[in-house]
Parts: sequence; C-alpha cells; structure tokens
Amino acid sequence: MNKVNPNYALMPGSYLFAEVSRRVSAFQAAHPEKKILKLGIGDVTRPLPKVCIEALHKATDEMADPATFQGYPPAQGYDFLINAIKEYEYDARGAKVEADEIFISDGAKSDTANIQELFSGDAVVAVPDPVYPVYVDSNAMSGRAGIYENERWSKLVYLPCVAENGFMPEPPKEKVDLIYLCFPNNPTGAMLTRDQLKVWVDYARENGCLLLYDAAYRQYITREDAPRSIYEIEGAREVAVEFCSFSKTAGFTGVRCSWTVVPKSLKVQDAAGNPVSLNDMWSRRQSTKYNGTAYIIQRAAAAIYTPEGQKQVRENVGYYMENAKIIRETLVELGVEASGGVDAPYIWLKCPKGMDSWSFFDYLLSGAGVVGTPGAGFGPSGEGYFRLTAFGSREVTLEATQRIRELLGK
Amino acid sequence: MNKVNPNYALMPGSYLFAEVSRRVSAFQAAHPEKKILKLGIGDVTRPLPKVCIEALHKATDEMADPATFQGYPPAQGYDFLINAIKEYEYDARGAKVEADEIFISDGAKSDTANIQELFSGDAVVAVPDPVYPVYVDSNAMSGRAGIYENERWSKLVYLPCVAENGFMPEPPKEKVDLIYLCFPNNPTGAMLTRDQLKVWVDYARENGCLLLYDAAYRQYITREDAPRSIYEIEGAREVAVEFCSFSKTAGFTGVRCSWTVVPKSLKVQDAAGNPVSLNDMWSRRQSTKYNGTAYIIQRAAAAIYTPEGQKQVRENVGYYMENAKIIRETLVELGVEASGGVDAPYIWLKCPKGMDSWSFFDYLLSGAGVVGTPGAGFGPSGEGYFRLTAFGSREVTLEATQRIRELLGK
Repeated sequence: MNKVNPNYALMPGSYLFAEVSRRVSAFQAAHPEKKILKLGIGDVTRPLPKVCIEALHKATDEMADPATFQGYPPAQGYDFLINAIKEYEYDARGAKVEADEIFISDGAKSDTANIQELFSGDAVVAVPDPVYPVYVDSNAMSGRAGIYENERWSKLVYLPCVAENGFMPEPPKEKVDLIYLCFPNNPTGAMLTRDQLKVWVDYARENGCLLLYDAAYRQYITREDAPRSIYEIEGAREVAVEFCSFSKTAGFTGVRCSWTVVPKSLKVQDAAGNPVSLNDMWSRRQSTKYNGTAYIIQRAAAAIYTPEGQKQVRENVGYYMENAKIIRETLVELGVEASGGVDAPYIWLKCPKGMDSWSFFDYLLSGAGVVGTPGAGFGPSGEGYFRLTAFGSREVTLEATQRIRELLGK
Repeated sequence: MNKVNPNYALMPGSYLFAEVSRRVSAFQAAHPEKKILKLGIGDVTRPLPKVCIEALHKATDEMADPATFQGYPPAQGYDFLINAIKEYEYDARGAKVEADEIFISDGAKSDTANIQELFSGDAVVAVPDPVYPVYVDSNAMSGRAGIYENERWSKLVYLPCVAENGFMPEPPKEKVDLIYLCFPNNPTGAMLTRDQLKVWVDYARENGCLLLYDAAYRQYITREDAPRSIYEIEGAREVAVEFCSFSKTAGFTGVRCSWTVVPKSLKVQDAAGNPVSLNDMWSRRQSTKYNGTAYIIQRAAAAIYTPEGQKQVRENVGYYMENAKIIRETLVELGVEASGGVDAPYIWLKCPKGMDSWSFFDYLLSGAGVVGTPGAGFGPSGEGYFRLTAFGSREVTLEATQRIRELLGK
C-alpha cells in the first residue's frame, strides 16, 4: 500500500507541545531532584466550578435509570445548552446568533482543525504570525500550505504580529480566501477594539474572503471597548465563523466541550458562482464524521449559565488574571519587554540577552526549572519571543516568578 | 469566497439516519396519538452499567479538588485505560497488540471517518455493499468516491453482500488500496469465522492493500470459531487497522468512548516506495486535530475491565441478544427471510411482498408504527432489505414484534 497522504511527510518535527514535553521529560530524567514549574502549555489548574460538579453528578444519575438514560446526543447538540449559549453569550450582548447556527463539539481544537475540510484544496489561507499551530498544521495536512522551507510554508500568507505593529496583524495585500484570527490572541495576548475588528469585517466583505475567528479566550477581556464576539460587529454574519470553548472559562480542558457558530447568512459560492450554505456544509460534516458530545458534559457546560455559575466562572478567571498580573509585573520590573496579560491569560515576552526562542527555553528550564513555550514554535515572527501562561496555581506562579527574578536579575 | 470543497455538492440527500428521523417526525406530527416504536437507529436503551456510574461519580469528585484535578488528557489516552484494553481485549485472547498501538477517542464513528485522511486522494477504496454509510460518505467528502450516479459512487469498488453469498463480501477482482470490513456486520448481522477472516488477511498481504476492520460489535459474538479481533489472525499486524467502541458493550452511545489500533508493524510506503509508519501518521493526526477524551469518561470506560464490570457488560449484551432472538423468531415464524441476530444485534430481513426498502419503511411505520432502517440506505445491494435492531427495551421489542405479527400475518 503506497497511497499515503503525501503532506504528512512535509510536516516539520512533531507538534509544538509534544516537543516541549519531550525536552521537559529529558531534563527531568537527568535531574530527578528538580521541581519543574510549568507555565508552558495553556492548561488550567483550578478545579471545575461547583455548579459543573453538581451537574455532572446529577446527569450521571440520570444515566443510571432507563427512564432518564440518554443515548446518541443530537448531532448539533442538546437544545438546553444551545439555548443557554444563545441567551448568555449572544442575546445578552445584542449579537444576533440563531440556535441552529450553534454547533456543540468536543473542543475548539477539533473544530478549528476540521473547518478547513469545507474548502477546496486551492483556497488561499492567511494566518497571523505567530499563531496557534493547529490552524497551520491542519491546512498543511490537507496540502493547502504547500512546502515547508526556511521556517515558512510556501503557500500560506503570513500576517506578521510584531512589536512594531503592537502584535496586531494587518490585512493582507494579496488576494486570500480564508483568514484565521484569534482574539484575545494566543500566543501574544493582544486584544483589539471593536473599531479594529470592524476593519477586518469590512476588509472581508470588500475582498470576498472569510474570517475564521477564534474567541476561545474571550472571558479574559477586561477592556470595555473590546468585542467578546465577532457578531457584535455589523456585517460579520455574512463573512465570519466563530469558535468558542469552555476550556478556559469553566476549566474544561480535561472535560472537552466547545461550540462553533456558522451563520446561515454566511456568503459563499461554489466554483461556478452558485450560492452555497456553509451552515449546511458544517452540519453535514458534523453529522457524518462526529457523533456528538456526551450528555453529561453538555449538562456540565450548561450549568455555568446561571447567576451562581457565572459567579464561579468569574472567580476562576479572576484567579488566573491575578497570576497574569504577577508575571507581567515581574518581567516589567526586570526590564524585560513583555505584553499581553491584560485581556488575555498569556504573557508574550522578548527573550532577554538576544537569545532565540529555543535557547531561552533551555536557559529557563535549566536555570530556573521553569517551562514556557518558545515563540518560534508559533511561527517565524515568534522567533526571539516566548510565551508564559497564567494558568498555573498561585503557588507555582509565585515560585516561578521568584526563580525568574533570581535568574534574570543577576 | 468561492473556494468551497466541491465534493459536498455531490453528496446525495442527507445522512441516512437524519432522513429516517425526518420521516418519523413528519409521521408523528400527522398522527400525534400513535406511539412509535423505534428499532431503527442502533442506539442502546439500557442504563450504564453500575461500575461505570460509580466510576463517573468518583472521577467527577476528583475534578472538584485541585490535588486530583485533570486538565488536557494525554493525546493518545490515559495509561490506565490503554493498559486495561490491552490486557482484557488482546492479551487475554493471545492477540499481540502493544500499548502504544492503542489510541483512545470519542467514537468509532469519528475514527472510521477520519482514518481516510492518512491516504492520498487517488487511493482506491473498496466497501462491502450494504455498508455503514460513514465509510462511504467520509471518502466521498474527500473526493475519493468520484461521482454519485444511479445509487453508486463511480470510483468506489463495491463488494456485494447478498443472499447468494450469505451476505459475506468476496475479495475484489480489481486492484484496490483500502478495504473496509465490519464484523459482526452492520447492517446484515453476518459474522465470519477465523478461517474466513484469514482469507482476507492473506489477500491483503498478497495484494498490497490495507484492511480497515470495524469490530464495534464484537461483544455480541456467540460462535466459538469467530474472531473477536482481527489480530487473532496471523499476519494481520502488517495489514490491518482495527476500530472498537464502548457504545454497544457498555452502552456508551451517549458517553462517547472508543479506541483504534494502528500496529507499528503495519506496512505502508510513500509514493516513492519508502517505508512510512501509519502509527506515526495517526499519532500526528490525533495530536494535531483532536484534544483527547475526557478524563471522567476514560475512567468510566476502564471500569468495565474488572470481574464485576465484565459481568455487568455480559448482562447488558445478553439482554439485547434476547431481543434479537425474539425479533428473528417472529420473522421466521411469519415466513420472512431473515438473517443476523445470532452473533450481532442486527436482524437483516428481505422486505415482504416484493417491496423496496423505503416502501417497506413507510409501510411498517404507517401500518405498525414501527421504525426500522431501509436497507437501500446502506448501499445498492441493500435495496429490498431492511434492518431491525435489538437495542430497544424488552417491552418495545415485544410490542413491536406483536404489531409486526399483526401487520404481516394478515
């Protein structure tokens, strides 16, 4: 059998976090006595909100009784969760989203990786640089990224996010079909205003392209003039898909639940110019290749949409944002250039002493036993930068910043 | 934006079970007083085994405590579940499967739909006919099936499973790259012996093709000479991928957990003839596009691998197999040609009075209020046949067979 997908062989090294994990394991094996502090992968550490725990217990008991047992979930998700999302996440903000435009799934990672299947192999893709690797890798696996040479994919259009532009991508000069955006941004922690997002929506409308908008971190926004959803922006319903997640709001990284909005008014055409419903395509994709999200997990997710649930989520987010403040202020105090951490749980720093990203990774790991994520792993413009996350416990965050102070303050 | 995947437009109608569901809803709306009995979709009705309920409660409590909270699951699955599967499902039967060849996921539907991504667009695919629609539709969405005309996809190789060959597919005459097999079979309920499966393994080895073996129903096998896993067959490790599921054994249709085995010894090459590890490719695919199965759900799955858990699963399976016996014997008594239901929870029957599949669907729904699945929905050779499932409750099964007796016995 020699008919394998040729694109896999073009992929460089292994998935970023797998490589981080490999280096950490190797270091720990060589230094078993060292306590390693992880501020690398964006994994949460706080327990699930109480409302979610209660909902899980209750739903589990329902699964024990033939009268309340739940089999295959509805393909698009249970109404109780879809309606709660619609009310709390969209209606409450005056953003128009209909119930049948919301699709529940097991993670924004799956959905942002799978969405490219709806597009043709010759669609031109633009990504911010640095960027969450899943957007790039999923397109590379489908051949849409071309060939990887000199840290760049030949067919991707890179939108540099660098100090000079405040880590804010600018619309491409060339014609593209799909643009991935992520705000609050992973990895840079940057956030834009409604006016700035309006520029993107207008650009997409004028240039006939589609925005794939990842809003997984929106609960971390503190600024009043920043959009929680792209559908707060006029005209977005015709040009944008939005991805959201319970991972960072309700601590669901190990529980797995998310949703994607595909407006019925989204304007796409087939190659002959006939109108096509992307909502229908995603519905078909999901009902054919996915079998729904567990009932008990959808119940746990819905539990955050109560006044008590909202309070518990705000407490969790507040805890992490205090961590962000501690990390950011430590770095500023040490004279390290750092941004993010105000509307996002990520702090993006310029590697001191002119080090490149992986050198600083090794330097920080060996010198302080602290793990972060090398900026270069997020794209060529991330070289020389480094990401720290606010998702550790308070104790780990305090100890890590203390060790960083000792290492860099020398 | 006019760069949509052109293959979606080629797909006929909607997904089979969505169409069944649509017709049932329409009938119920027109006859709100009628109690509809569903023996259509293969969804279970028994509550979760007690061991699973207990494990869910315990794991949920762990998620409430920072000391035991679990974030992102390991990409391939937790060792406690992988090792339990290895021991109970493979070691116990003398089938060689290593821990790092087992990948946990959220469903055999997802995995059987996603596996085609590892192959090139020009791989030639053979499917049994009739067949579980997911194998066909996932390849059609990727352009590997060609064009749909006269109930057939132009590029697929169909392996007819008809009364003349005992509903057992025969190896293709033409050169193919991938062959999907499912035993115990969905939808026909047929099961093969070890000797018969050996013919397929030998064929794959001799003809340089790969077997994609779906064993989701293996817990229903009663015959001693039938293989529970393809790895019981000598030589299978070089040519077969196996898909399994907790849906029909532990009643996980609404819980979502499964596993796929990709042996490291699987022999594939790239177009230039260089060896490629399909295990590496699947690992890369899963770690890039999937974020793991919930901790609490993996705990629930692992709970069945205890003597008490095995007993509870056997009881559940025994309950459904008694239903299968009731359905099969009713049909035989009525003079309807029926097979399956001995090593599988599906009964495959020839539509009486020369009706086609959808006519019999409507006849049974309107005449008896019983829902089954039209054989034609599973492929051209399914025309004139019909599938009933044993997954209803005993009460529903008894009432449905009574109504069928009244309708057909006239």
